[in-house]
Amino acid sequence: MAFSHPSTDSTLTPGDRRLLPVPFRHVTIDDTFWAPRIQRNRESTLPFIYQNLQETGRIDALRLTWKPGDEPMPHIFWDSDIGKWIEAASNSLATTPDPALKQQVDDVIDLLAQGQHADGYLNTYFTVVAPGKRWTNLRDLHELYCAGHLIEGAVAHYQATGERKLLDIMCRYVDFIAQTFGKQSGQKPGYDGHEEIELALIKLYHATNDARYLELSRYFVDERGRQPHYFDNEARERGEDPQAFEMGTYEYNQSHLPVLEQTQVVGHAVRAMYLNSALADLAREQDDERLFAACRRLWDHLTTTRMYLTGGIGTSARNEGFTRDYDLPNETAYAETCAAIGLVFWAHRMLQLDCNRAYADVMELALYNRVLSGVSLSGDRFFYEDPLASDGTVHRQYWPDVCCCPINLARMLPTLGQYIYSANATDIAVHLFIQGEAQFTIGGQAVTLRQKTGYPWEGGIALQIDAAAPFTSNVRVRIPGWCRDALLAVNGETLNIDDIMQSGYAVIARLWQPGDTITLDLAMPVERIFAHPAVRADVGQVALKRGPIVYCLEEADNDIPPWQLLLSDESPIESVFEPDMLEGVAVLRGMALAPDERDWNDPPTLYSTSRPRFVSAPFTAIPYYAWDNRQPGAMNVWLHAAQNT
Amino acid sequence: MAFSHPSTDSTLTPGDRRLLPVPFRHVTIDDTFWAPRIQRNRESTLPFIYQNLQETGRIDALRLTWKPGDEPMPHIFWDSDIGKWIEAASNSLATTPDPALKQQVDDVIDLLAQGQHADGYLNTYFTVVAPGKRWTNLRDLHELYCAGHLIEGAVAHYQATGERKLLDIMCRYVDFIAQTFGKQSGQKPGYDGHEEIELALIKLYHATNDARYLELSRYFVDERGRQPHYFDNEARERGEDPQAFEMGTYEYNQSHLPVLEQTQVVGHAVRAMYLNSALADLAREQDDERLFAACRRLWDHLTTTRMYLTGGIGTSARNEGFTRDYDLPNETAYAETCAAIGLVFWAHRMLQLDCNRAYADVMELALYNRVLSGVSLSGDRFFYEDPLASDGTVHRQYWPDVCCCPINLARMLPTLGQYIYSANATDIAVHLFIQGEAQFTIGGQAVTLRQKTGYPWEGGIALQIDAAAPFTSNVRVRIPGWCRDALLAVNGETLNIDDIMQSGYAVIARLWQPGDTITLDLAMPVERIFAHPAVRADVGQVALKRGPIVYCLEEADNDIPPWQLLLSDESPIESVFEPDMLEGVAVLRGMALAPDERDWNDPPTLYSTSRPRFVSAPFTAIPYYAWDNRQPGAMNVWLHAAQNT
Repeated sequence: MAFSHPSTDSTLTPGDRRLLPVPFRHVTIDDTFWAPRIQRNRESTLPFIYQNLQETGRIDALRLTWKPGDEPMPHIFWDSDIGKWIEAASNSLATTPDPALKQQVDDVIDLLAQGQHADGYLNTYFTVVAPGKRWTNLRDLHELYCAGHLIEGAVAHYQATGERKLLDIMCRYVDFIAQTFGKQSGQKPGYDGHEEIELALIKLYHATNDARYLELSRYFVDERGRQPHYFDNEARERGEDPQAFEMGTYEYNQSHLPVLEQTQVVGHAVRAMYLNSALADLAREQDDERLFAACRRLWDHLTTTRMYLTGGIGTSARNEGFTRDYDLPNETAYAETCAAIGLVFWAHRMLQLDCNRAYADVMELALYNRVLSGVSLSGDRFFYEDPLASDGTVHRQYWPDVCCCPINLARMLPTLGQYIYSANATDIAVHLFIQGEAQFTIGGQAVTLRQKTGYPWEGGIALQIDAAAPFTSNVRVRIPGWCRDALLAVNGETLNIDDIMQSGYAVIARLWQPGDTITLDLAMPVERIFAHPAVRADVGQVALKRGPIVYCLEEADNDIPPWQLLLSDESPIESVFEPDMLEGVAVLRGMALAPDERDWNDPPTLYSTSRPRFVSAPFTAIPYYAWDNRQPGAMNVWLHAAQNT
Repeated sequence: MAFSHPSTDSTLTPGDRRLLPVPFRHVTIDDTFWAPRIQRNRESTLPFIYQNLQETGRIDALRLTWKPGDEPMPHIFWDSDIGKWIEAASNSLATTPDPALKQQVDDVIDLLAQGQHADGYLNTYFTVVAPGKRWTNLRDLHELYCAGHLIEGAVAHYQATGERKLLDIMCRYVDFIAQTFGKQSGQKPGYDGHEEIELALIKLYHATNDARYLELSRYFVDERGRQPHYFDNEARERGEDPQAFEMGTYEYNQSHLPVLEQTQVVGHAVRAMYLNSALADLAREQDDERLFAACRRLWDHLTTTRMYLTGGIGTSARNEGFTRDYDLPNETAYAETCAAIGLVFWAHRMLQLDCNRAYADVMELALYNRVLSGVSLSGDRFFYEDPLASDGTVHRQYWPDVCCCPINLARMLPTLGQYIYSANATDIAVHLFIQGEAQFTIGGQAVTLRQKTGYPWEGGIALQIDAAAPFTSNVRVRIPGWCRDALLAVNGETLNIDDIMQSGYAVIARLWQPGDTITLDLAMPVERIFAHPAVRADVGQVALKRGPIVYCLEEADNDIPPWQLLLSDESPIESVFEPDMLEGVAVLRGMALAPDERDWNDPPTLYSTSRPRFVSAPFTAIPYYAWDNRQPGAMNVWLHAAQNT
């Protein structure tokens, strides 16, 4: 079986051997797949988002002029949209100067500065809509969640520009939060219903080197789910019955149990991913084996029972999250864009703690499929939820009222470079295959790694190493779990991968000479994929995958609706690169079986004792990420399998 | 292919050769299948309904003491529940005296009498809740629908008891309705959004022989869907935008087109069935070929594109009705009990106009499957909607707030006898195979037909004819469409069915001697059923049927959840009568294929390039009507078919 990953049953790598991502500012991307997307994100999506933040009143809301009766009323989560947009814009500015965009950001930061209270508090909703209600409903009202996104925005802004204005604002606010929350007398033993500030505080700690922020993050994580339950007490103080919680269970916000006792990913998927990302951060920063073990348990549970083939997670619209093991319906899949992005965040952090392709494979899967599907080719239509089957009525939205997903995409794309490589004093790790160049420092020596590849359409990769002088290093090259036939060579000399495989990475330890070239050839046949038989929606179904790309069939390419086709186990399927389709994609073409409807139509027959006769029918599959960019029609990732039992 | 029916492309049978149902008062049922159900309906369901009518305030509402602020507020459709209950109770009283029940009915009729206005008007909601709003919203508020059910109740009461009190009340009310509605100046050119009064007026016409009631019914049918549209004008008069109609389209209430121009069954399924029943009635009463042709078009459309295998109809909860051709999802099937009952009403009427098994087969299918599934074996739990697949969370309700379905079942079951036989001056027709005795008059001669059978579990039927003297008659015996091997004999002498087949009925014309016996042996093998390939939910699926009974698999009988099984085309399936299961059912037993989960669990694997291995697994199927009478669990009518393509 493919997709069997190296065990994640590892202990925490010693601190000096842990990896760190190579920052995206040190990585250029110049391929034909991602580079145009990053450019479009900068040129189309970012202006589109700013325009919508303006038009929907989110920016004007920062002027704090709202009065009861005014429309629109600032929403509890609007500050988070502002924070994420600042982060998105700053991430773009970090590599691509844009004075107009910089001015937009500075103006918004000025508004935030004016809105900060004397005590450091900063929240639009609780300033104008619900003054006096500060910290009265952490369970539902996203107060610390908004702070978290503003923190992330502040750190990104500082890193991109070197300017401390927003960073200082947020440090003042966090100082006030740290006074407010904690275990000391007079403090509230609270934490937010929507995790986010926990991982943001780790970023703030790195940006400021102030360990109090690390401790505050740890406090929020440790307090979560303790008894007596903070959200129970808080509800009673509001005069509400804690049992009347709309979502029914604290699994919704992962506070049903103390975090270290949790063994299953539950509840709201984005919240779970943000929490788990913070857990991985804290495990690293605090050398905490137990936190790391908790992360691995949750990871294994998620990836072996609750993840869609596309890397989408979170089954149900009801809780925007998880339901039961193997409950992965296709047509009603919620699989929110933000949740897939959160999964990438978490996978990326796990990967630095254990250079194990179990994490990199899922990171890649989510990136190339469910994350990328979130935005249209035009850059201005967005999936919030994105199913794996559609009757033709599901489409990307122009601007969802809850616009977390577009902005989450916009903040991630400019940082794609940081997901490709990691390094430490002795090692370089290559996680993703994306053409471009990266700058490392290995043992004090500047090293440039130039990656050339036609990925994801071709499996050939060349990594050329440049440095001023020879240097010793372990270069860890990921051999993807989906690949069953990889050839690795250095300067044309083939290596035996099996001999040097560690947790799914080929580890090449040598004295590297300037100009050395590693070549990797990943066989990329079309694969038929089957799901665990407990996945009810996928019993008797088959999906198509090639390399990291999950495919789907759309009616736009197929005369016969995809749900009517039967795919046999053996018929050949070829991959053909179509430069003019969907901005250039490898499509899959083959023959399937289709029932002959004519037998049923004369005379019209709805039910029969005669099995439908099947006839050959050509099919074309396209990458899932590119669906719903043409005329509406049925779409299916999973197809009926002809079961030659 | 089975289920190919004789063409329904017939012309209206001349009046003197049309059939009439043999009234249920002339038919006894003494089998082990239906008789206990009719008894339970009388002994458990009727008292249960009365108790709930009381407890929910429906009976007290008739005292007209409700004032604003009182709870509960009488609902617009409560009068229809009263009317249907009177009909149910009367139908039971017609064959089984019960003084206490009679007293309950009389008391309710007294309340109705007191509630009738001086002008004849009678409606609880518009008397106490919305006085002054009479006839202002026929589109939505069920005003004439309620009148229709009270009329049906009145006719049933009159026929059961000979007492005219309620009949006279309703004649006065209908006289007022007839003054109010029509094409004359000063009259409203209206009709009800929920059809029902149209068919009720035909019954009133038969009970009173007053042709004005027939004409009023025809008026309502003819006016429906004419332009300018009554519901448009009515909405404007209320100061509303007609476009703001919540259901979006007048297809919802079949007023999108004049009735004679309609070619597709659309909208709310119960409304459509009640309308179509009235169309068939009017075609008969008025010798109207065009109405009959409209009925046949609608019939063919329904039964070849929009009917579930169980006889359930109406796909969507949104409109409680039809969506698109072949849109028959299983797990979300609405398939309301009342709609299946309405289908039986319509089929029964069509059958009298054209003695064609196309109608009888569907009538039987709906009766034995979707109608019967509506009530639990205990007689006090009811499906409103009833899907063809369940994850184990769908159950019959104790008493739905909208309780049309329980009462509809309760009024139909006592009348089951009328669906078995029809007759006219020359012919006797045997439509259903239910043990019991029927009294006919053929050419002035009293004839008794004694039917003996173990149907639906066994296909052997004996019909013994008794009369004082020999008589000439055509006895039409239905050869069901599901049967591919039938043997027919008279007094042991085999007949060549093909020679005497007319529209799916074997027609035996002879001089009948007292004591003559017709025997019919219907081969009843287990059949695998497939759906038209355009039915998305059923592609690659197979269902099981034996005789008239549709089967399902429940987790209660199967170690492996039914959605995980694959059924091959060839493996033998046996039918075994289990007297102690579910009050005695023939279950189906055989071997299916089940994926071996062990391959996927060590190590845990969610997706793989290896197809699941299948192992043999025994299965047990039970009649669909009996599902959800034991511990909760998954249920499936349609199973994965092992596709040996």
